[in-house]
Amino acid sequence: MVLESLRYRRGSLEVLNQRLLPGQLRYERVGGVERAWGAIRDMEVRGAPAIALLGCLSLAVELAGGAGPSDDLGALEEFVGQKLGFLLSARPTAANLGREAERLQTFVRQQVETPGVTPQQLRESIIEYIEGLLEKDRRDNRNIGAHGASDILGRVPEGGPVTLLTHCNTGTLATAGYGTALGVVRALHQRGSLSRVFCTETRPYNQGSRLSALELRHDGIPVTIIADSAAAVTMRERGVQAVVVGADRVAANGDVANKIGTFQLAVAARHMEIPFYVAAPSSTCDPTLASGRLIPIEERPGTELTQLGGVLLADPDVDVWNPAFDVTPHELITGGIITEWGVFAPSEVCRALAERGEQ
Amino acid sequence: MVLESLRYRRGSLEVLNQRLLPGQLRYERVGGVERAWGAIRDMEVRGAPAIALLGCLSLAVELAGGAGPSDDLGALEEFVGQKLGFLLSARPTAANLGREAERLQTFVRQQVETPGVTPQQLRESIIEYIEGLLEKDRRDNRNIGAHGASDILGRVPEGGPVTLLTHCNTGTLATAGYGTALGVVRALHQRGSLSRVFCTETRPYNQGSRLSALELRHDGIPVTIIADSAAAVTMRERGVQAVVVGADRVAANGDVANKIGTFQLAVAARHMEIPFYVAAPSSTCDPTLASGRLIPIEERPGTELTQLGGVLLADPDVDVWNPAFDVTPHELITGGIITEWGVFAPSEVCRALAERGEQ
Repeated sequence: MVLESLRYRRGSLEVLNQRLLPGQLRYERVGGVERAWGAIRDMEVRGAPAIALLGCLSLAVELAGGAGPSDDLGALEEFVGQKLGFLLSARPTAANLGREAERLQTFVRQQVETPGVTPQQLRESIIEYIEGLLEKDRRDNRNIGAHGASDILGRVPEGGPVTLLTHCNTGTLATAGYGTALGVVRALHQRGSLSRVFCTETRPYNQGSRLSALELRHDGIPVTIIADSAAAVTMRERGVQAVVVGADRVAANGDVANKIGTFQLAVAARHMEIPFYVAAPSSTCDPTLASGRLIPIEERPGTELTQLGGVLLADPDVDVWNPAFDVTPHELITGGIITEWGVFAPSEVCRALAERGEQ
Repeated sequence: MVLESLRYRRGSLEVLNQRLLPGQLRYERVGGVERAWGAIRDMEVRGAPAIALLGCLSLAVELAGGAGPSDDLGALEEFVGQKLGFLLSARPTAANLGREAERLQTFVRQQVETPGVTPQQLRESIIEYIEGLLEKDRRDNRNIGAHGASDILGRVPEGGPVTLLTHCNTGTLATAGYGTALGVVRALHQRGSLSRVFCTETRPYNQGSRLSALELRHDGIPVTIIADSAAAVTMRERGVQAVVVGADRVAANGDVANKIGTFQLAVAARHMEIPFYVAAPSSTCDPTLASGRLIPIEERPGTELTQLGGVLLADPDVDVWNPAFDVTPHELITGGIITEWGVFAPSEVCRALAERGEQ
């Protein structure tokens, strides 16, 4: 059995309800955009690439089922735009769904302007375009893994094996497969160059202990869970040689928004002089925002910290501040940003990707 | 109602079972040393000062009930020594119970050597000595609070009000009353100089969200819970002006063992140029250990991270590293160590206290 965040074939989409893990492995049907919106908002699926894929694929499922105007190119274009806009309102921080929506709309516009295209052909081409995203994400992740593994091995004595530390979940459950930061972990393991990876629990949603540990153990990769608070002392005392995390949005100057706690890990890594890497596909870059200060940070309900599966963790009336993400300034990303095109200095990444035609 | 960790009157001791908080407020009878050992090991009571008090008071209860030899001074001395040795085996890291045990044994020796003392008088004097520790702890904490508040207010523009961040629980529930780091918080609040205190959740045992938030709200002190991972970003974005934590053991060079995560907070505070304080009674100092490297660090069961109140948080077979404490090197304790005698530079604290006759 493969742990996949999404199961898709034309006209049919299922999402693994990650809220039920590790106790229950249940795939739930996603009939269209509205159900996908709820799954994103309620974090049944999370991870910037998986959110983008679920959103786009839910639209493909609607289109395959005949939803939307069937006799007017402009009306179908508008229908697609409205659906994408609605999906984007589910969670504000991750860039990927926004970037993919923009690219899809550019594609639709080009199709609409192509002489002789019928509404049925347009519909079909949109579905095919979206289906291509799934394969592209898997391919990009394998490239991220390869680039990251080579860069890390180039920095350690005698080329490894290496001990890594990661945060949150960035693996098969956060992407179409393989993973970004966990893609780097997988690539190192496949080369026989991984000693161990430490996964932070990642409160309040426990993506590290619930999800990363599950999928890594599933693949036979040596993994140890630690409390978020134990990260710095793990770096100091357990031989961590690099920290690798994912990203939800990269600003033009290389500042990175990622799961809450990333900034703190980067500060600790700097203190311990351990290279700190961010692994993310180019669609995570947002060149329209000059710096990380401009990235919208989602604040989630306090109940995520005061309750857990019916257990009361705190006085339910207490004040809670629960930002889901934080921004790590580019100067702390000392290892670099690992993309499908290679590893870049943070301040260079958006420009470098633009030169490769990705912006 | 006052939230107290312990309720004592001669011959009777009850402990608030903190594992049941915040859902249930239940005091449980502690008839003697064995029950106290279990309560310490299972963390029904925690916090270095409260552990020391519970241990010593459980011995006082046994002695008041007639336990131990009644006709031989030397045999009674040995009985006390055995009971204290057993209590010390419950948890290894905190210094206070060890220090108090050592002082108590010195006191007993002196009594035994005093001409004309009867076994009954010795028994009575031990009980009175132990009862004195309760009042001393409350008095020490008020002094810690006053010294800490003054030092912090001396560093901020126009003398406050200040915003603090703290970790774990160091309040009425961790001491005989008032608290150490939370004593500083209380003192600032009583002077009208506290804007707000942020409490980390403090995984895996959630002492911050379950206990600190509870007792601070109970006293009407403005408190906000954050995830442990959010501490650095809270310092950066919510105007934190000082970090104040407790301690379980202070080595001769000023290195401090405290709840896991303390080191990481100190690193973040240094990065943000925010003063980092440790608040602890002099009994926390252990001048026999040259540096923090020598402090024994308790590792607790992995189930603390994989389960919570019957909810499965991770694959139960996954590897977990769960150190309960970490060591913060003295150079990161930039604010100083706040004791009942005043605020000291970390490297000076043990010597300074020795000069005051506390060592």
